[in-house]
Amino acid sequence: MLPLSEARITIVGLGLMGGSLAGALRGKCRQVVGVARRSETLEKALALGFIDQGTTSIAEGVQGADVIILATPVRTIIQQIEELAPLLPPGCLLMDLGSTKRDIVAAMEQLPPYVQPLGGHPMCGKEKAGLEVADPELYRGRTFILTPLPRTSPDALALGQAIAEAVGARPLVLEAGRQDYLVATLSHLPYLLACALVATADATTSSDPAAWEIVAGGFRDTSRVAASDVTMMVDILLTNQDEVLKAVRVYQEQLHRLAQLVAAGDEDKLRAALGAIQRERLRMFP
Amino acid sequence: MLPLSEARITIVGLGLMGGSLAGALRGKCRQVVGVARRSETLEKALALGFIDQGTTSIAEGVQGADVIILATPVRTIIQQIEELAPLLPPGCLLMDLGSTKRDIVAAMEQLPPYVQPLGGHPMCGKEKAGLEVADPELYRGRTFILTPLPRTSPDALALGQAIAEAVGARPLVLEAGRQDYLVATLSHLPYLLACALVATADATTSSDPAAWEIVAGGFRDTSRVAASDVTMMVDILLTNQDEVLKAVRVYQEQLHRLAQLVAAGDEDKLRAALGAIQRERLRMFP
Repeated sequence: MLPLSEARITIVGLGLMGGSLAGALRGKCRQVVGVARRSETLEKALALGFIDQGTTSIAEGVQGADVIILATPVRTIIQQIEELAPLLPPGCLLMDLGSTKRDIVAAMEQLPPYVQPLGGHPMCGKEKAGLEVADPELYRGRTFILTPLPRTSPDALALGQAIAEAVGARPLVLEAGRQDYLVATLSHLPYLLACALVATADATTSSDPAAWEIVAGGFRDTSRVAASDVTMMVDILLTNQDEVLKAVRVYQEQLHRLAQLVAAGDEDKLRAALGAIQRERLRMFP
Repeated sequence: MLPLSEARITIVGLGLMGGSLAGALRGKCRQVVGVARRSETLEKALALGFIDQGTTSIAEGVQGADVIILATPVRTIIQQIEELAPLLPPGCLLMDLGSTKRDIVAAMEQLPPYVQPLGGHPMCGKEKAGLEVADPELYRGRTFILTPLPRTSPDALALGQAIAEAVGARPLVLEAGRQDYLVATLSHLPYLLACALVATADATTSSDPAAWEIVAGGFRDTSRVAASDVTMMVDILLTNQDEVLKAVRVYQEQLHRLAQLVAAGDEDKLRAALGAIQRERLRMFP
């Protein structure tokens, strides 16, 4: 494996995640090549100084690449792994930025033996999508999960870690299944809750014009992630179905328990339950 | 009713809400009197310039007051309305800042006929409590709900509106039952959801040390209000039980519907449902 400073890095997909990564890596490696479907996106990325060169052809983009990073929605990543398999340069590192890792790692298992695969999932994002909101500082201070395969060499993993560190993130190595379990509760569940909250307001209070004047900070924060990119979220939910549904079931039990305490009007038990939760929240975010 | 500039205003409870209101009203009325249980709180409020004078005696505090504003938890407000009934100066305006209004307005109905009662609920707050986090700018730009009783005179309501405007808020007149219905979905439900989310993470992922490195912006925002003051929230939930439980039921149905779409793996229906929710969220917060 080359050191990062000598690597030619191809980033497939120049939306929020890929565009931000390109901008953050440019200057820290030999070259950043961007691949996008539309030439206007490439022109914009060039104008922003995020890439050294661009192409709308993924086959052309991966030629001569030392590192290829797929920054598309999860199921597109899986398709691209299959499509790229015969086109990948020997010795290259193939990474991705998808939020679920089990299916992606399974697809990576099928790659030719001369390719080094490494799953990646940086814990950042915005509720807006696209190159317009990309920011080379997006990754700074965030955790960048890496899910190596048994076949991933220590050198390839080290290069992945160097990439995470180069963009200001903290690499965290996890097994793919464990990452999918954790993010189901910590990331995908909050999205579904936010969606159900917006749907509840839509079904009830939103017909009252006063609702729009009342809706305040608590609702805004709790529902923020419901504005996330739908294509990205559909892919995430459908490639992490089991873990997400398990998390929803635990959540429904917890909500039911709290609602029962409210219904029973048992002040002491309600206070104890809410107090324990408040302390846990303060422990999570001191 | 005196104009606001000539009024002596007594604020009972100098926590986040009462302290902030005192600081915002000082200088815009004749005098701000603070009532707190502990003399240290009064000293702090005096040092911050939030009050002109203070007392630990509520009976003393309401003497000679033109306006009395109860800024304590909802069930304490209800007790204080009963305790204060024989002590209130004729012609005074009695307001409160409680988040639920039906029970408070019912208690206000019992006040002597020479008192003008007016329910109030400013739509602001923080997940931290106490005078330490009070801020005279807290109310600026926020909606300040007012729930007059049939017995509330137009002059008394106008003075309540003037108070809301004096602190930079937008007064919004609502019937108490309608306000309790709306805030159940728009404020109390988000609190319970946030609590159930924290409880879910506590029951599942929090035993994995990696969870603490992964937990990101989505979880933080969705769970923020779970850190709210427990005494305040217990009072709110127990004085708005019916509306809160109704909102939870609608919410559980909406979450169940989304979980079923994930379980069915029906991409088109899932995309349509999430897309409609995303558009609704953007409509709420453009």
